[in-house]
Amino acid sequence: MVNKLISQLASVEILTPKLDDTLWFFKDVLGLYEVGRKDRSVYLRGWEDWYAYSLKITEASTSGVKEITWRTYSEEDLYTAIKIIESKGLGLGWDNGEPDMGVGKGYKFMLPTGQVGKLVWEMKLWRASGNLRSGYRARPIKKPLQGVQAKDLAHLFVFAFDSNSLKSAVDLFKSLTWHVTEILKNGDQILTYWGAFNGTAHDMAIGLDPSGIPGRLNHLTFNVDYADDILRAADLYSDYDLEIVGGPIRHGITDSHSLYVKEPGGNLIELLHGGYINVVPDWEPVVWDTKEDENRWLYYWGHVKEAFWDGSPVPKDKVDPELRELIRQKLGK
Amino acid sequence: MVNKLISQLASVEILTPKLDDTLWFFKDVLGLYEVGRKDRSVYLRGWEDWYAYSLKITEASTSGVKEITWRTYSEEDLYTAIKIIESKGLGLGWDNGEPDMGVGKGYKFMLPTGQVGKLVWEMKLWRASGNLRSGYRARPIKKPLQGVQAKDLAHLFVFAFDSNSLKSAVDLFKSLTWHVTEILKNGDQILTYWGAFNGTAHDMAIGLDPSGIPGRLNHLTFNVDYADDILRAADLYSDYDLEIVGGPIRHGITDSHSLYVKEPGGNLIELLHGGYINVVPDWEPVVWDTKEDENRWLYYWGHVKEAFWDGSPVPKDKVDPELRELIRQKLGK
Amino acid sequence: MVNKLISQLASVEILTPKLDDTLWFFKDVLGLYEVGRKDRSVYLRGWEDWYAYSLKITEASTSGVKEITWRTYSEEDLYTAIKIIESKGLGLGWDNGEPDMGVGKGYKFMLPTGQVGKLVWEMKLWRASGNLRSGYRARPIKKPLQGVQAKDLAHLFVFAFDSNSLKSAVDLFKSLTWHVTEILKNGDQILTYWGAFNGTAHDMAIGLDPSGIPGRLNHLTFNVDYADDILRAADLYSDYDLEIVGGPIRHGITDSHSLYVKEPGGNLIELLHGGYINVVPDWEPVVWDTKEDENRWLYYWGHVKEAFWDGSPVPKDKVDPELRELIRQKLGK
Amino acid sequence: MVNKLISQLASVEILTPKLDDTLWFFKDVLGLYEVGRKDRSVYLRGWEDWYAYSLKITEASTSGVKEITWRTYSEEDLYTAIKIIESKGLGLGWDNGEPDMGVGKGYKFMLPTGQVGKLVWEMKLWRASGNLRSGYRARPIKKPLQGVQAKDLAHLFVFAFDSNSLKSAVDLFKSLTWHVTEILKNGDQILTYWGAFNGTAHDMAIGLDPSGIPGRLNHLTFNVDYADDILRAADLYSDYDLEIVGGPIRHGITDSHSLYVKEPGGNLIELLHGGYINVVPDWEPVVWDTKEDENRWLYYWGHVKEAFWDGSPVPKDKVDPELRELIRQKLGK
Repeated sequence: MVNKLISQLASVEILTPKLDDTLWFFKDVLGLYEVGRKDRSVYLRGWEDWYAYSLKITEASTSGVKEITWRTYSEEDLYTAIKIIESKGLGLGWDNGEPDMGVGKGYKFMLPTGQVGKLVWEMKLWRASGNLRSGYRARPIKKPLQGVQAKDLAHLFVFAFDSNSLKSAVDLFKSLTWHVTEILKNGDQILTYWGAFNGTAHDMAIGLDPSGIPGRLNHLTFNVDYADDILRAADLYSDYDLEIVGGPIRHGITDSHSLYVKEPGGNLIELLHGGYINVVPDWEPVVWDTKEDENRWLYYWGHVKEAFWDGSPVPKDKVDPELRELIRQKLGK
Repeated sequence: MVNKLISQLASVEILTPKLDDTLWFFKDVLGLYEVGRKDRSVYLRGWEDWYAYSLKITEASTSGVKEITWRTYSEEDLYTAIKIIESKGLGLGWDNGEPDMGVGKGYKFMLPTGQVGKLVWEMKLWRASGNLRSGYRARPIKKPLQGVQAKDLAHLFVFAFDSNSLKSAVDLFKSLTWHVTEILKNGDQILTYWGAFNGTAHDMAIGLDPSGIPGRLNHLTFNVDYADDILRAADLYSDYDLEIVGGPIRHGITDSHSLYVKEPGGNLIELLHGGYINVVPDWEPVVWDTKEDENRWLYYWGHVKEAFWDGSPVPKDKVDPELRELIRQKLGK
Repeated sequence: MVNKLISQLASVEILTPKLDDTLWFFKDVLGLYEVGRKDRSVYLRGWEDWYAYSLKITEASTSGVKEITWRTYSEEDLYTAIKIIESKGLGLGWDNGEPDMGVGKGYKFMLPTGQVGKLVWEMKLWRASGNLRSGYRARPIKKPLQGVQAKDLAHLFVFAFDSNSLKSAVDLFKSLTWHVTEILKNGDQILTYWGAFNGTAHDMAIGLDPSGIPGRLNHLTFNVDYADDILRAADLYSDYDLEIVGGPIRHGITDSHSLYVKEPGGNLIELLHGGYINVVPDWEPVVWDTKEDENRWLYYWGHVKEAFWDGSPVPKDKVDPELRELIRQKLGK
Repeated sequence: MVNKLISQLASVEILTPKLDDTLWFFKDVLGLYEVGRKDRSVYLRGWEDWYAYSLKITEASTSGVKEITWRTYSEEDLYTAIKIIESKGLGLGWDNGEPDMGVGKGYKFMLPTGQVGKLVWEMKLWRASGNLRSGYRARPIKKPLQGVQAKDLAHLFVFAFDSNSLKSAVDLFKSLTWHVTEILKNGDQILTYWGAFNGTAHDMAIGLDPSGIPGRLNHLTFNVDYADDILRAADLYSDYDLEIVGGPIRHGITDSHSLYVKEPGGNLIELLHGGYINVVPDWEPVVWDTKEDENRWLYYWGHVKEAFWDGSPVPKDKVDPELRELIRQKLGK
């Protein structure tokens, strides 16, 4: 029997030193809806995200990832998960959630790789009212008239600062019922794991950061409705002088279509289409090896630039001071 | 915590009175691979089905569905599921499986709606060898050079012969951990349920058959890789004189793209693209009402003909004699 | 040797009783750019139209087509064409053009079917300056971030009020070097002609109007960049409560993909993708017959509603008074 | 008035040292139909080519282009064109055509760049009979069930061996009514011209070959029906171990989508989608400069490898002996 503690990745908070430009990118180009503002933060959502928001953008002195939120399958699962986290000494305690956004209290923790995660049970499903309410009854809001019309949050790729932190993070998430689908090696060294809580090819990847700095993000990803939306996004990115870092490609790993761009604030943002559903109970992760497969795991066709490995924050060591301090306290790094 | 007994719909066996024509449709037009033959049966698979085959086509005096196979999450889950089935008096006992195809023994049961289901735990993952082995390491076989290149089995829509059988079937599947996503009503009467074991918008639908005859199939569905594959399939169907019953459309229910065709043997076959992932723990099924929504649940845009409701076997009462006898024994119908 | 007098359909002026709603449709939903306003008129363009504008929308008491503008291949060709027109008694004399829009004086004439046409030689190529200038050097302006991102004006379908006017109009345009590609008959009666000046499958169609009222429009058409833009447009039309009159379809005639919608002002607007290039010197028009082909000429796959035949103005006899008077004078109808 | 002598590129003959493998590529992967064989040559066509064949493949000791055939607009135009060619000393005399394929006698000539061209007037339109006859009345044959389903011949890119031959070839084709749409420069040096006889963005490009060897081909191109066919072709090329040389990309020049592959015989083959129609009478060619635009003319988004410049034959100096001798005679090279 499969016992899932966590149902899905629910939202990600990223940082940007250029809030207006970053909002132009996510709202005007990607077509996300703005659903709220508080202090220096703006809450955004795709038209088929189930909860109120899937992206929180906070103005800061740097770029990077601030907080990653997952929803558990039940209140009981939340406490089971907390026990697992606390047994590893990674707990950071409760916050009050985002009550205006229908998100209740959350339990924060440090990933062994230095990012801040949060687990939440109380989370209200969201549906637009008024003119933007869709007649498609399961669709939370009308498909927007704007931009690429990104559909919903798909996954994020967090960096591990060394092999130990990579292994510890994967062990943690496996104990939280994460299903590993594919693995990348370079000979004997494991470089990256892909897997999912939600039955897809991946809702998270964790991979080695050449920089060795904790707490960093490789990229954040939204799904699109059509494969041609990937091409259309490339049209817009190229016409509006955004830096395409890779794609259009088909990944070898996860068999999905993809396009990578640097948003004006410095974070790497991917659009994704396709991939597979994998709920095979006795699945053994597929293994790719750069010695044999070269870059085909990343781009079986198409091309990705070296800048794919940069991640954020930019520059690499400009980690958010508050996060830097937390990493020092919890991980001693 | 979500406790899933069943991981996924694994394969469907359909009947055809015109084996050669039906094989031409599935192999030459849809692009499924033939992986085996036994007696009057042929085993087919899409290029991203995980197990050896997802479609078994058996020559018979009629069309319709012969057997529906799901894989459990574990051996223990198989026995838990059998207990549930037997407690409802629906058990039909074990068969020997399809050892040549990597499928172990299965426990057969009668759906309250008159179709034959089967639960299997022992099922080997399948990977092509030789020239057709793909370099995409998670892809079980190269994408075919033929036809529409249907990707994998998506779902089936089984008919219920009356409201009681509909309710009983849904209750059975819910007790087997099926997650209902959307419901169609006509005022007070529930017409159809959509739901999934595997986290998608649906891997099965169960709906009222106007004919009132037990054991019938509305349609069987395969996923395609691109939305344009739906258009391309319409090109081929129309150029090769196949009867398009509906589409290209976008369903209101499940928010997916679709095209329906009658295969030469008489079964209604759908191609599907898109839809959503739904693993929301406290999801309340979305409700459509034909009084308010008219046909938008079926085709929010595009058009479907009345023949959509015909299903198979054709003619409606020409149910496979062996199945007819089983229905009489188990359901007294 | 092919001697072409007319190079292309350059722009169409349509009327609307609901200017704001019509502009919302063309700008926010279709993604056309506004490039100017004068009195009650607004000038719009797609991102790959060569000249300043391809659509002029004028507020009026009714809907329908006001003026159709073609560009000749040279100044000499303009005068040659005028001689042909005047020899048929259809001349209406010169206007001053749209100097602010780079369009010089034009010679106006009445089509035998009751619409007003205009021939222009002086027409400046247009290129955006400033932020919207595209780095794609042949692309006149950046691809918009808005809506369906309609690309350029494709064709229009004008109604003929009877068989004589249909024949006269086709004869006129053939004498102006229009290349007929396909014909629709109902037994002995010709219903519609498709053809082009510019080498495509059609830049104009002329067909019988069941209403018998002169000067009416069936529909106006813009190209889209991707076939999926047709699907995406259907998504937006259906979510924003616009009335889809037909599609997504593949036309039998011209072998193109299409979607029809009523814009809020009452005009039927088509989006088109694909079709063929046909510069075959000795091409004999392909003939379809509704007796044999039924509706396949219109929708080989997909579906179009009867409302396709309504056209504009709406109601059918509410023809613009000024146009009505011109028709009376020139055609005696 | 536009006076066109040549209506379109009608067919291209290429050479291959691996006839079977090359046929597998064009028939099984691209989905071209075989319509005839003679000696060591095979005749192929796309499903929307108007004449009997658009590609002739001839087994030889090398790869490369053997003959390029254009159809004139009339018999008179053929003789006018011959006069122009003979005035430049480039005539090679008549051949008997391909009577079995509906192609009459042709006048052969040497391009100033060393390839062999041919002009033909007598060319029969082609339509399949029997099972493959399409109900789409303008469609010459059913859309195939096989492979990428390439639609029709689009253009070829011939190499010029130096700047003088480039200029001479462009002058020749302009005198034959070729319309230049875009030009690539490197500072003062012109590298490539794109243009068309048929109103599209290009049906031929002529560009400098770094090798300086006369008579070589850069690539040959077929249109596809959908943009997603480009992605689908990349799926097949990558899964069947064909070498993708570039793409999927969007060209800056001609604004079209593209994918390049080496067919097993060594010729570079492009698939194309989109681009624009350009029949602007006073069009001034758009100019790109590699000093300013870098590679954006070639891939505004996406990526193309250096091998794009290789062309065929392979190795570069292995020009077909018969062609080599003709070049020596006519061009003294």
